[in-house]
Amino acid sequence: MVETVDDLSSNGMSETDYTLEPIGVVHSPLTSRKEAPRQADEGAPQAWLELSDSVTEGLDGIEVGDEIIVLTWLHHAHRDVLKVHPRNRVESSLIGVFATRSPDRPNPVGLHRVSVLEIAGQRLRVAAMEAIDGTPIVDIKAVLRNIDER
Amino acid sequence: MVETVDDLSSNGMSETDYTLEPIGVVHSPLTSRKEAPRQADEGAPQAWLELSDSVTEGLDGIEVGDEIIVLTWLHHAHRDVLKVHPRNRVESSLIGVFATRSPDRPNPVGLHRVSVLEIAGQRLRVAAMEAIDGTPIVDIKAVLRNIDER
Repeated sequence: MVETVDDLSSNGMSETDYTLEPIGVVHSPLTSRKEAPRQADEGAPQAWLELSDSVTEGLDGIEVGDEIIVLTWLHHAHRDVLKVHPRNRVESSLIGVFATRSPDRPNPVGLHRVSVLEIAGQRLRVAAMEAIDGTPIVDIKAVLRNIDER
Repeated sequence: MVETVDDLSSNGMSETDYTLEPIGVVHSPLTSRKEAPRQADEGAPQAWLELSDSVTEGLDGIEVGDEIIVLTWLHHAHRDVLKVHPRNRVESSLIGVFATRSPDRPNPVGLHRVSVLEIAGQRLRVAAMEAIDGTPIVDIKAVLRNIDER
């Protein structure tokens, strides 16, 4: 059992215990990080989430109109960054990445709240999504308004 | 570049490309999954989030009173589950894990929205947190009300 931070690095667990298996991929007209809006409410387009055959049954119960939370692996992010200029404005003071939504951070897991517009088999059309084309999807969760909003 | 789901498994990327590095650990009076509330608003206690020395500067800018999103690795979850009875009620129909917040899912990343009550160096006291003692922390993000709440 992990009891302290030190145990995390000394308890003999192999790193593969923390390995994500992509469950799908984002298809988007956004093709580079540079053209992607910084947040979904800043002009992000619709996207298709294509899930792998092996996890398709995990979608049962998701309906058009639902709000869902998509977790992605931000594959173009820099994992060695701990301080950033908020919104890349160099005139802003550096702050810690954990006080921001920068994609650059030790574990580049993206968090995207989107609306489901269409369901076609193992593909979901959603809006608005600022992740770029080819971004691996690692999880989808229901929104729980009483705990995700307060 | 990953273009399709098939590419994800055939593009030659090693699995370590998707490996999370725990950045800290949850200290909580909750010691087993059985006693943990199913959601944070169902009697979850306060917890201390202890961050590793190596990432402490990433906390700069987080203040008491802030709402943050904590991502964890739900180390007691079952990764081979795609359908669950909502809230473990066997009388409910099975639905897909992606339509729920079950800890059991292919990538058991927990999502917890909490309030920061106290900051003591690399430790944050937060409420309310349903993760059990020893749960590895993998990320912390600022809440953005315009995109996390709609």
